[in-house]
Amino acid sequence: MITVLRIGHRPQRDKRITTHVALVARAFGADNIVISGEDQKIKETVDAVVDSWGGDFSVSFQSWKSFFSSFTGTVVHLTMYGLPFEDHMDAVRAAEGDLCIVVGAEKVPPPIYQRADFNLAVGNQPHSEVSALALFMDRYLKGREFEREYGGAKLSIVPCEQGKIVTGSRNPRPPGE
Amino acid sequence: MITVLRIGHRPQRDKRITTHVALVARAFGADNIVISGEDQKIKETVDAVVDSWGGDFSVSFQSWKSFFSSFTGTVVHLTMYGLPFEDHMDAVRAAEGDLCIVVGAEKVPPPIYQRADFNLAVGNQPHSEVSALALFMDRYLKGREFEREYGGAKLSIVPCEQGKIVTGSRNPRPPGE
Repeated sequence: MITVLRIGHRPQRDKRITTHVALVARAFGADNIVISGEDQKIKETVDAVVDSWGGDFSVSFQSWKSFFSSFTGTVVHLTMYGLPFEDHMDAVRAAEGDLCIVVGAEKVPPPIYQRADFNLAVGNQPHSEVSALALFMDRYLKGREFEREYGGAKLSIVPCEQGKIVTGSRNPRPPGE
Repeated sequence: MITVLRIGHRPQRDKRITTHVALVARAFGADNIVISGEDQKIKETVDAVVDSWGGDFSVSFQSWKSFFSSFTGTVVHLTMYGLPFEDHMDAVRAAEGDLCIVVGAEKVPPPIYQRADFNLAVGNQPHSEVSALALFMDRYLKGREFEREYGGAKLSIVPCEQGKIVTGSRNPRPPGE
């Protein structure tokens, strides 16, 4: 099980970034996201994506302290100050138990660095928690994240050279209408 | 030369996402970003990053119509409706001239799909233009984006297992102080 833990979420400022973090978590192979803080709007948005596009990704809210009081698996904290992530992927893959990937907003409290089994940097240049998570998952899954199937999807895309082809329907009309 | 063209930017709603797109463009090896729309705050933020962390990435503003009226290189439009991006990387690399990567916000006008030499999908699941750009650049540069050096940096990070080690200073004190 792979959980993304989003810490430092500020509802006004971070709504869209945290939503993108959640969508990346889902599209790149995590099972769920725990947001330290509460923001039902994000849950509604992501739940609607899951409803339309399938899979069983879930969003929940819990303080990071409470989360870590019961989590016993391996913790990877993504930070631009950490060690080069690619050098440690084998060790992360070999670690036992569930995996938690911590993705911070601006300030990350020191206990996170201490609790993390791995503080890893996706490059040492400032970019985005959205791209850092995507690259980490990509290397962790060895690029197989794009082969995943999403069960129960109402919508799916037929890749095409130009334009948009979507099969299925979000709100199918009742038969006979 | 690699230019990221950000279209559909809405200043209120997209400020932070577009900033993250710009930072990913810089950190993953593009030379500049052109934002269709105007938002000086983003330019200030990204210019400050360049000033501190080096390199010569630049931000400018131009409508996409005006941009395309003079751009003669290869256009890649990243869209979840497109063809699998990894299947076309060799063709993109082989294309001549400058490269423009178009990254949309919500609605992308049909002329963009038509002008694009490649409409490419980084997976066919909804996620984020931030992660789509990062993955595209990663594959385009074959993972070498993390080896880049940024000339003239005032700050740089010394990767470490725990905590933060930054060398240099944004505002060096005058000698003798």
